[in-house]
Amino acid sequence: MISVFGHLNPDTDAITAALVYAHLLSRSGTPATAYRLGEPNQETAFVLRQAGMQAPELLPTLPAGSPVALVDHNEAAQSAPNLADLDVRYVVDHHKLGDLTTAQPAYLRFEPLGCTATLLLKLHREAGLSVEPTDARLLLSAVLSDTLEFRSPTTTDADREAAAFLAPIAGVDDVTAYAMQMFAAKSDLGDTPAERLLKMDYKEFTFGAQQWGLGVIETTNPGYVFGRQAELIAAMQAEKVASGLGGILLSVVDILGETNRTLIVSGAEAEVVKGAFGVEAEGQVADLGQLISRKKQIVPALEAYFSK
Amino acid sequence: MISVFGHLNPDTDAITAALVYAHLLSRSGTPATAYRLGEPNQETAFVLRQAGMQAPELLPTLPAGSPVALVDHNEAAQSAPNLADLDVRYVVDHHKLGDLTTAQPAYLRFEPLGCTATLLLKLHREAGLSVEPTDARLLLSAVLSDTLEFRSPTTTDADREAAAFLAPIAGVDDVTAYAMQMFAAKSDLGDTPAERLLKMDYKEFTFGAQQWGLGVIETTNPGYVFGRQAELIAAMQAEKVASGLGGILLSVVDILGETNRTLIVSGAEAEVVKGAFGVEAEGQVADLGQLISRKKQIVPALEAYFSK
Ligand SMILES: [Mn+2]
Ligand SMILES: [Mn+2]
Repeated sequence: MISVFGHLNPDTDAITAALVYAHLLSRSGTPATAYRLGEPNQETAFVLRQAGMQAPELLPTLPAGSPVALVDHNEAAQSAPNLADLDVRYVVDHHKLGDLTTAQPAYLRFEPLGCTATLLLKLHREAGLSVEPTDARLLLSAVLSDTLEFRSPTTTDADREAAAFLAPIAGVDDVTAYAMQMFAAKSDLGDTPAERLLKMDYKEFTFGAQQWGLGVIETTNPGYVFGRQAELIAAMQAEKVASGLGGILLSVVDILGETNRTLIVSGAEAEVVKGAFGVEAEGQVADLGQLISRKKQIVPALEAYFSK
Repeated sequence: MISVFGHLNPDTDAITAALVYAHLLSRSGTPATAYRLGEPNQETAFVLRQAGMQAPELLPTLPAGSPVALVDHNEAAQSAPNLADLDVRYVVDHHKLGDLTTAQPAYLRFEPLGCTATLLLKLHREAGLSVEPTDARLLLSAVLSDTLEFRSPTTTDADREAAAFLAPIAGVDDVTAYAMQMFAAKSDLGDTPAERLLKMDYKEFTFGAQQWGLGVIETTNPGYVFGRQAELIAAMQAEKVASGLGGILLSVVDILGETNRTLIVSGAEAEVVKGAFGVEAEGQVADLGQLISRKKQIVPALEAYFSK
């Protein structure tokens, strides 16, 4: 039995990709079970309710040598804690290739697309399998989530085509209205503790000799997030110390305005933000303008800065 | 323009995969040129003559940031010397994933198949492109070469199907007779210097803290190779010292007998061979029996030994 899972602090793409790829592997004769590496966020919970699906179980500690499939990630820092001891047989991802290695020749499928879901649709077609309505709903939701309904610069024509193909199978008549519902669910942050808001979509990256933490909150209601600015910066500061980070950023992305105002904790971040983006922070907020993609815009700029 | 190339000390799969993948990328709208990282061996030269093709040019030193496609390899030690400065956009391979990373999301295609050629046939089908007769000849030859005409334990059903599909397009009526011609060309080692025989199909691997060099000579005429044993062991000893290796092995694989007798240089190799394979060397020859695949049998056994 192959265990299939997406990254830590899972987003909608990570959870749905695990569910759909486990199903696809099983239908292709390789029994597989989906797991998650953390709590689904509010958007993902909405998507699962709409699809009539339960969230996958939390990944248990797998015995060394267990066969696994990684979806929507490939780096050890974003994966199961004992990844080095596991037998990576399959990877389906749309991120840059990090520190992954495999003990044996494996099945690896990476494409520079807006989301894992678009690649999973392609795998269905190659296998000659139709996409079942529940899977279509999950995949459509992941396309809309990862591309911010085609607003992100990571969006490709293949992502647009995938959404157009999946919507009727999923029974979604008005894709824009459905995306707005998803984003509203994601923005309904209520009394979520600041620590959880920070970690909702959070990844660590290695830049030169430093480890950085980069969080993103995508919301239709940035005013709510900035109303909790002091709490969030305190949570960032605590995480920075606890994990020995060189820096920590929390980007608040206004989905509809397509803008990014990023919280920083100290002069260290302010200096890096100035060098990497040419932006002077005001107090603890740096206006990164239309740089809304961590993968395609924020991380590459930081990598370029630290490799100078 | 994307530069496409296979591994150092190229075999038939490495050279033909570069030619066919460059052609496929170009036909798909991405201009690409094939290169090689060393002299084609005698078998490859025969295959190119049969296909009416020239060998690709030797890879020049590419400027930093040049876009490249790797075929039939992914590790830096087997690639262009300045790989770390190049922009890896595509990888098509059937080896385990080593130390490769990419600066941006890339197109990566790895499957546990007997050769790269079988995967390239799949890519033609997915792209809805027919395989042209010259490409079919190159791909068929690579399948036969990498799988030793389906004798290697790396052979999969997909490799057998690929060969059966390609043979009529390539105009090869008798696949077995053609494979015998290829193997005879490979075995026609004439007055090739011992240093060149050692390096013809040679890769370095890291086992724990040690670097090892593993050469293979696949031949229908092992008697010829053992007739030059003293020269070959002198060349191995010189390479071991020059490259600061922990050990060096040269496996002489009898293609038709499907057996492997491996040359060693010293007690260091004898001890490792005993521990990893349970085989006592006689003089400077270790009989590894039917372990004829470096990728699937020799390397994993050495890795297991050194990780104990
Ligand atoms: Mn994703
Ligand atoms: Mn190969």
